[in-house]
Order: sequence, then C-alpha cells, then structure tokens
Amino acid sequence: MSQLISNAVNFVKETIKKTLKEDSIVIDATMGNGHDTLFLRKQLNDEGFLYGFDIQEIAIEKTKERLIKNNCYSDVKLIQDSHENFEKYIESPVDLILYNLGYLPKGDKTITTESDQTLKSVKEGMSLLKSGGVIIITVYPGHLPGALELEVLSDYLETINQKEYAVMKVDFFNYKNKPPVVFIIERR
Amino acid sequence: MSQLISNAVNFVKETIKKTLKEDSIVIDATMGNGHDTLFLRKQLNDEGFLYGFDIQEIAIEKTKERLIKNNCYSDVKLIQDSHENFEKYIESPVDLILYNLGYLPKGDKTITTESDQTLKSVKEGMSLLKSGGVIIITVYPGHLPGALELEVLSDYLETINQKEYAVMKVDFFNYKNKPPVVFIIERR
Repeated sequence: MSQLISNAVNFVKETIKKTLKEDSIVIDATMGNGHDTLFLRKQLNDEGFLYGFDIQEIAIEKTKERLIKNNCYSDVKLIQDSHENFEKYIESPVDLILYNLGYLPKGDKTITTESDQTLKSVKEGMSLLKSGGVIIITVYPGHLPGALELEVLSDYLETINQKEYAVMKVDFFNYKNKPPVVFIIERR
Repeated sequence: MSQLISNAVNFVKETIKKTLKEDSIVIDATMGNGHDTLFLRKQLNDEGFLYGFDIQEIAIEKTKERLIKNNCYSDVKLIQDSHENFEKYIESPVDLILYNLGYLPKGDKTITTESDQTLKSVKEGMSLLKSGGVIIITVYPGHLPGALELEVLSDYLETINQKEYAVMKVDFFNYKNKPPVVFIIERR
C-alpha cells in the first residue's frame, strides 16, 4: 500500500497530476527556486504553456537555469513582477495556478509574500480560471506573515459562493510546529 | 478536466480507491443502508474480506439484501454490534476502516453514533491498522451529536504522535450549512 498522507509538498504534487492535462495553461505564481516550476512544466507538452512569476531577479535566474538544464525552457514565460499583477500579462483563461507562499528558500527572509497582495492576486486568479480550473495555495503559518496570510485567505475563501467555486482546505492535523495548510479552489 | 472537488462522499470514494488493494481486509464500522459496504466489497476479490458493523438490525438486513442483490454476499461478515466493540470480532490487522458517522439515513434519528463510543472505537481501530493502513471518518457537524463528535475527535486526533500516525483533516471550506468534515488517519 502506498503512502497516502505524507506532507503538503507531496499532496500538492498529487493534486497537480490529477488536475493537469498536457495542453494546460498554467501559472506558477511564486517561482522561488523553480522546483515547482520545473515540475509543472514537465507535465506539459508543446501545446501547453507556463507563466512563471516572481518578484526577485534571483528567482527568475535560478528558475531559468533549472529549466534550461532539464531541457524545459520552451513554452514558458518567466516574469519578474508580483503575482498580484498577473492580469497585466495573461488574458486567456488558465487551467491551474500554483501558489507556494512565504519567502524564497535560502533567500532573504525579509522578502515574503504579503497577505494583501496575496488576497488581491488570488481574487484575480479566480477570475482567470477556466471552468474546472484549479488554484492550489500552500500557506506557511509557522512564520508571522504566513499566519496572517492564512487568516486573511481563510476569511475570504469561506465566503465564496459555492455555486461558482468549491474550496477545500487540507490540514496536516497532527503535525507539530504549525505545518503548511493547503487550499484548493476549483471553478465550477 | 475532471471535477476535483465535489463533496465528502466522492472525496471518500476516491480515497478508498487509492488505498485499497483487491486482497485488503476492510471494516465498514457504520453500515447504515449498506451503500458504502457494497462499494467497499466491490473493490475486493476473494482474497479480501469485509467486516460490517451496525447497531441496528434493520441496517444489517438492508445491507445483506443489497450485497446479495449485487452478488457480493461472500467474504463478508455482518455483525450487529456497536463499532466500539469491534476488537471482540477482529484479531488480525486491517487495511482500512470506514466510519460514516451520524444516524441511519431515513431511519430513527434519535439513534446516532455517540462521541464517547466513536472515540473509543477510533482508538481501537487505530491499533488494529496494518502499517500503511487507513481510517477514513466522515463527521456531520450539522446536527448536535455530530458537532460534539467533531470536537471530541479533533481534540484527540491533533495530539496523535506524528511518528506513528499521520492525520489529515479535509474541510469543504465554503459550503453552507456545516458540511461534513473528513479525517484520514494513516498508520506509519
């Protein structure tokens, strides 16, 4: 029997695999070091497309390098801007938007996603989704800005009209040290 | 793109399919009208085995009838007793235990699972699990005993040692009228 519950990272990967088709249009809203970006890009063929966002230049560089190294630097556009601005760059409906909130691993911990920007971005993201499209958000309440993001997102997401979107919240319930929380938002 | 989030019933079915093998040993702790029992039995071949529990005679009858009608009344044992007593009947480790708490649909709503019994049963169930085995619990906080069960289960499950069991809690976060909550407990 395979392991059903492990952690947020694996749960998110499983959910991505269940959701994506090879020709999906995908946004990685928070590229960071580009691990998720590469994982997403690998699910797509040349009819799919990936937009990657990050506010930090180093994230763009690292992600680009990682994609090139894995022969995946095609059908992608990496954009150095905050994910709260992605409506500037994307007009057509998308299949999946991935948020991995918090700071850049091994980077400057003072540069983190902020709850107001995150909320604005998620609202825009929801309006960009195709019917059946999905947003996956991993929040890290173990640091203070993450705890605030969790609160702000929770307050908003529980009010969403269930005829338009379904929202699932997944807690790794008995894990110590405030484990990540995953939200999945699906457009009807 | 297929529907990812629909409701607790479908989420539980998906989780069962991911978890079970054809030769699994399974307990339906709360047979009710036997819909879940039939679904579980259908996942098994003749090397698997299913134990079904319900405190009400009518639940046993209805489930038996349903299994016979679907040519599934083999490799099963239906037991009229509370699930809090299942250690009396089952000695070998099991792969999956399913709880669908609350009252018998269309039955006597005063006969419901009770939080103390449920907690005792879940604790016993956890000790009966094989490594990799899973308990799936659907709780209905929309009626008062269900709200109490949710509280009692939550208080207990968040204290479980994460080296021995992983506990995941799934909320259908924006659904009105106190939707069901699903817990998944996996033994390491």
